[in-house]
Amino acid sequence: MDQDLQQTIALLAHTPAVFSALLRDLPEAWTRCTEGENSWSAFDVVGHLTYAERDNWMQRARVILEMGESQPFASFDRLGQQRERHNKSLGQLLDEFARLRAKNLADLRTLNLQPADLQRRGYHPSLGTVTLSQLLATWAAHDLTHLHQITRVMAHQYREAVGPWSKFLGVLQCAGHSAG
Amino acid sequence: MDQDLQQTIALLAHTPAVFSALLRDLPEAWTRCTEGENSWSAFDVVGHLTYAERDNWMQRARVILEMGESQPFASFDRLGQQRERHNKSLGQLLDEFARLRAKNLADLRTLNLQPADLQRRGYHPSLGTVTLSQLLATWAAHDLTHLHQITRVMAHQYREAVGPWSKFLGVLQCAGHSAG
Repeated sequence: MDQDLQQTIALLAHTPAVFSALLRDLPEAWTRCTEGENSWSAFDVVGHLTYAERDNWMQRARVILEMGESQPFASFDRLGQQRERHNKSLGQLLDEFARLRAKNLADLRTLNLQPADLQRRGYHPSLGTVTLSQLLATWAAHDLTHLHQITRVMAHQYREAVGPWSKFLGVLQCAGHSAG
Repeated sequence: MDQDLQQTIALLAHTPAVFSALLRDLPEAWTRCTEGENSWSAFDVVGHLTYAERDNWMQRARVILEMGESQPFASFDRLGQQRERHNKSLGQLLDEFARLRAKNLADLRTLNLQPADLQRRGYHPSLGTVTLSQLLATWAAHDLTHLHQITRVMAHQYREAVGPWSKFLGVLQCAGHSAG
């Protein structure tokens, strides 16, 4: 089942305001907390989303449209998001994420993609052949995966504080999965 | 480890705007979708949160402060949230949730709770003895559990559409847990 392009764009357009509503001006006890060593805070996640907005989704869409499968996507630069975050406040990162997302969605609309375009193929270095439709669906699902992740990271801080209610709270049963 | 009351209130105050930013004016393909029969949509979740705001958290806090363990909490009325939703649009429910949450937080601040108050005890019909601190921590974690849930419900709609990327998307590995 394919994604619906207008449905995908609607979700992508909402996401920056969701992260802003959740995190802006929230105490750092929520925004800087993690699930332990080598795990991410909400702040780290916003840095990751901002970097992916700059360096991943639309770049890959253009590679598919211009090069097809002949040009594998560049690998994701794991250090890139550390540079992205460098010396920035959470508010600055949220602003930057919103600005880049709006620019990317304007560029996406300008492409005026038709159904046949969505079936065009690219080559992912570890997944192999993928379609433009799958890339755009993943862009939206990636937003949801990281919102899913930070609710889990934040709830983890109250794992003890909720006492016996912990067994009723689904988010506290979440095993973590990949960071995505 | 106890909750921090100001930290709890900060999160509770943010939540209505988070749900509004995510869901308001989003296509019903996102807001009315479920994970299958007898599972909840984002619309159902907002009805549940609104009903809990009207009939659960502050009522239980008052029972603890006024009656202690001598008066078990009333059981949660599973039909109550269906009445809450009846004939309302998602926008109306989001407005109602925000209005009730603001009123409840104003009432909570008026109580001017001191550390000793937070250790006061109540009696949950299935969990047994709980403290006011645990109740308030659960209120905040309950917001997070339902935000966690709806990101999973929404991402489920794109399980096929993302193609081979599904294995990199943590939210698609989430087993569901309880609705909480």
